[in-house]
Amino acid sequence: MTGVVESLKAELGGEVVTTGADIPERNLKDWSGLPGQRPLALVRPRTTAEVATAMRLCHAAGVAVVPQGGLTGLVGASIAGPAEVALSLERMTGVEEIDAATATMTVKSGTPLEVIQNAAADADMFFALDLGARGSCAIGGNVSTNAGGNRVIRYGMTRDMVLGLEAVLPDGTVITSLNKLIKNNAGYDLKHLFIGSEGTLGIVTRVVLRLYPRPGSIAAAFCGLADYEAVVRLLKAARAGLGATLSAFEVMWHEFYDCMTTKATGVRAPLTGRHRLYVLMEAHGATEADGERLESFLGTMLEQGVIEDAAVAHNTAQIKAFWAIRDAVAEYTTMIGPMVGFDLGLVVNRMDDYVQECRKRVAARWPTAIGHYYGHIGDGNIHVNVHVPGADPQPKDEVNDLVYGLVREMGGTVSAEHGIGVTKRKYLPYTRSPEELALMAVIKRAVDPKNILNPGKVIEA
Amino acid sequence: MTGVVESLKAELGGEVVTTGADIPERNLKDWSGLPGQRPLALVRPRTTAEVATAMRLCHAAGVAVVPQGGLTGLVGASIAGPAEVALSLERMTGVEEIDAATATMTVKSGTPLEVIQNAAADADMFFALDLGARGSCAIGGNVSTNAGGNRVIRYGMTRDMVLGLEAVLPDGTVITSLNKLIKNNAGYDLKHLFIGSEGTLGIVTRVVLRLYPRPGSIAAAFCGLADYEAVVRLLKAARAGLGATLSAFEVMWHEFYDCMTTKATGVRAPLTGRHRLYVLMEAHGATEADGERLESFLGTMLEQGVIEDAAVAHNTAQIKAFWAIRDAVAEYTTMIGPMVGFDLGLVVNRMDDYVQECRKRVAARWPTAIGHYYGHIGDGNIHVNVHVPGADPQPKDEVNDLVYGLVREMGGTVSAEHGIGVTKRKYLPYTRSPEELALMAVIKRAVDPKNILNPGKVIEA
Repeated sequence: MTGVVESLKAELGGEVVTTGADIPERNLKDWSGLPGQRPLALVRPRTTAEVATAMRLCHAAGVAVVPQGGLTGLVGASIAGPAEVALSLERMTGVEEIDAATATMTVKSGTPLEVIQNAAADADMFFALDLGARGSCAIGGNVSTNAGGNRVIRYGMTRDMVLGLEAVLPDGTVITSLNKLIKNNAGYDLKHLFIGSEGTLGIVTRVVLRLYPRPGSIAAAFCGLADYEAVVRLLKAARAGLGATLSAFEVMWHEFYDCMTTKATGVRAPLTGRHRLYVLMEAHGATEADGERLESFLGTMLEQGVIEDAAVAHNTAQIKAFWAIRDAVAEYTTMIGPMVGFDLGLVVNRMDDYVQECRKRVAARWPTAIGHYYGHIGDGNIHVNVHVPGADPQPKDEVNDLVYGLVREMGGTVSAEHGIGVTKRKYLPYTRSPEELALMAVIKRAVDPKNILNPGKVIEA
Repeated sequence: MTGVVESLKAELGGEVVTTGADIPERNLKDWSGLPGQRPLALVRPRTTAEVATAMRLCHAAGVAVVPQGGLTGLVGASIAGPAEVALSLERMTGVEEIDAATATMTVKSGTPLEVIQNAAADADMFFALDLGARGSCAIGGNVSTNAGGNRVIRYGMTRDMVLGLEAVLPDGTVITSLNKLIKNNAGYDLKHLFIGSEGTLGIVTRVVLRLYPRPGSIAAAFCGLADYEAVVRLLKAARAGLGATLSAFEVMWHEFYDCMTTKATGVRAPLTGRHRLYVLMEAHGATEADGERLESFLGTMLEQGVIEDAAVAHNTAQIKAFWAIRDAVAEYTTMIGPMVGFDLGLVVNRMDDYVQECRKRVAARWPTAIGHYYGHIGDGNIHVNVHVPGADPQPKDEVNDLVYGLVREMGGTVSAEHGIGVTKRKYLPYTRSPEELALMAVIKRAVDPKNILNPGKVIEA
C-alpha cells in the first residue's frame, strides 16, 4: 500500500498527493456526524487526466479510492478509511462554457453549487437546483447523490438537470459523454449509471447542466390548514391552478412550526392563529402577472374552506422570512439538543397516516420524546427528527429501527434525497427487494470488478 | 431449438405459444420497412409470471427472445429471426390503478398509448406523451425506446414520465420497482437500465407513469421567419415569455412547408406569404388567461422584427389544422415517393448550418434530389427526408453515409428519439466513443451474459 502512495507521488507530484498530518482536517469527514478518519493519502487532481492517472495506479495496486466533493453529505459516503485513498475534486472548479441557444452550462465537477447558480444568473439564466449547503456542496456531489432540494416539484431532481457528463471508471478509463441534447437515444444512456450511485461506479469530472430562463416573478405564501385531507386538496388544486409555476410545496406538522416560530433566532410566526398543519408554497412565474395569480388562487381556497388562513409575501424579504422557518433546521442542535434525523419518502396520501403512527410509537417508547415532521410533500418526501430528552448519546439504533421499520410497513423509501452511503446501508433492504439488490450488485461488479471505487458504500458487492 | 418450443407449449399452453403459419402476419415485422421474418415461435403471455416462465425456459435452452410491443418502431428492434422467439406483450393490457393524490397511473406494458391518454383524461388528469403512432404503439415500447414526440420541451421524454417499472431479466428474474415517488435515492435507480435500452436488458411488464393536471388552455400559432437567427431568438424569447407553458416548438424549413401546403390532402397554408422558415408553437397553460398570452407575445415578436408573420389558432379545429401540416409526413410516400428518412440531434445553434451543408452535399451528389428538413428544434431534434427521383430502390446506404457522416462531423447524434435497433447500429460509433460503446457492452454482458435478450440490437455484445 505504501507502494501506491509512492507511485501516485511519482506520477502526480507532491502538490497533488499528500499524506499523514499534511492532509487537511476537512478531508477527514463529512456532515454525517460519523467520526473522521485519516486516509492513506489525499489526492487532489487538477485535471481529468490526473484523476485517470490516480485511478489507473490505484486500480493496478488494488487500493480503494473514495471520491470527495464538498463533503456536505449526510450518510458518510465520502469518508475514506485508513487503507483507502481519498480523491478530492476540490481543485477541479470552474465554468467551462455557457451555451445560451442550447440553454446549457458545462462545469468542472468540483465547482460549488452557488458558483453555478451565480454564473447562470450573470448570463441572465437560471440554474434550478437549490439546497441549504449551496455554498459548500460541489456539483459533482450533487450529481453523485442525485440531490433534491426545495424546487423538485417544478424542476425535478439533479438527474433531470444533467444532460451529459464525463466520468472516470475504476480502471482509469475516461467516459466523455458531454451531451447537450434533450433528446439523444443513441444506445444506453450511460449518465444514469453515475447519477445517484454515490461515487461507486465512476468519478464524475465534468457535467453539462440544463439551464432555464430566469423566473419573471417569484411569489410565496404561508397557509394554515385544519387537517391533512385539506393539504392534499390544496396540492391538487395548486397543481392545476398554478400549473407548472408551482415550484415548492412544503408541509409542516404543527410541532415543527410551533418550535421554529418560538425558538429559532429571528424567526416570526407569519400567521396569527394556530393550525394543525402549515404549507409554504412558492411559484416561479414567467411574467410579473404570474406573481399575482397566487393571491387570487388562495382567495378561492379560503372561500372553499380548503385553507384556514394564509399570508402572502409581497417582496423578497417576506419570501425569505417564510423560508427562514423551514431553514431553521440548521439550528436544531442549538434549539433542542442532539436528535436523530430522517429523510423518507412515502406516497402523498399516506403521509399523515405515517406521521400519526410514528408519533404514537415514539411516544409509547419514549414518553417525553420530541418529534418533528416536515418536508417536500409535493414530491412525497418527508423529514422526521426525533429527540429523546436526557439521552446521551441519543438511542440512534433504536430510533432508526422504529422509524425505518414503519417506512417498510408502509412501502416507502428509506432515502428520498440524501442517499444511502454507509449509515443507511443496513436499511436499504427495507425499501429494495432481494432481486433489486442483486441487480445493483451485478452492475457494481461489472463496472468495478475489483471493488475499489468507494467500496462498502450503498451496497455490498 | 424445437425442444424449447415443446417446453414453452408444455408450460404455457397452445393458446400462449404459437408456431409456423399460426403466427399472425403482424408479428413478423415492424414499421422499419425491413422484410418480415417468421420466428421460431410467438409467445403471447397474459401475466408477468408467464413472461418470467418463457424467459426461464429460453434462457435454459440458450434461445434468443425478441420482445414486441405495438410494432411501430422504425429501426427494426422488434423483428425476430427464424431461430428466435418473439415475445409479444399484446395481451398484457389495461390500467391497473390511477392514484390521484400522487398523480400516477400504473399500467400493463402492452397498453396502447392512446388508451392511457384517454384513461388519464377520464380521471380529469393528463398523460403528456404523444406521438403519431398513439393508436398502435404500446407504452412498453415507448418506455423501451424512450419515446419523444411533440411535447418534450414541456414534459420531457418518456424517461421523465416513468416513476417505476417492473421488468423480467433474461434469466426470468422479475424486478418489481413500481415506485410512485418523485424522490427515491435508495441505491441505484434501476429503471434507467430498462428505459431506452430497446429490450436488450429486460422485458418491461408494468409501468408507473407520472400524470399532470389537464391543461386549462391550449394555444397554438404558426409563424413565418426570415432566417434561422430569428428562429433562435424566437425560441429564447418564448422560453422566457411563455415560461413552462411552452409545449411545442416545431421548425420547418421552406421546402417542407411548400410541399405540405400544396400536396398533402386537406392541408391549407396558414400564412399568405412565403418565408424561409416556419415555426409551429404550442402552449399548455394552467388557466384560460394563459391561452391569451401567446397572442400578445407574438405581437411583441412582430414589433421587434423577430417574426415576419403569424397566424394564431382560436379554436381546437384551427390548432388541428396547424398540426396537420406537420403530421402530413405520414403521407410522404404517396406524395413524393420512396425516401430515406432520418431522426437526428444537433445543438440548436448549429441546426441551420447542418441543413445548409446537407442541402449542398445532397445536391452535389444527386442534383434532382428533394430534401426536407423539419423537427422539434426546441429539443435539438431534426428530421431529414431525402428522395432521389427515379432511383428504385433509393440509394439508402449512400444517403445514410452522407447524412450521418455530416452529423458525425458536427458532433450530433444519429438517433434523437427513434433508437438504434439494427438499422442504425452501423452508425452508433459516429455518435458514441469507443469507451462509451465498451461500457455499454459491459452492462449488456453483465445483465445478459448469455446474450439471449434481443441480441444484435443496439450493440454487439
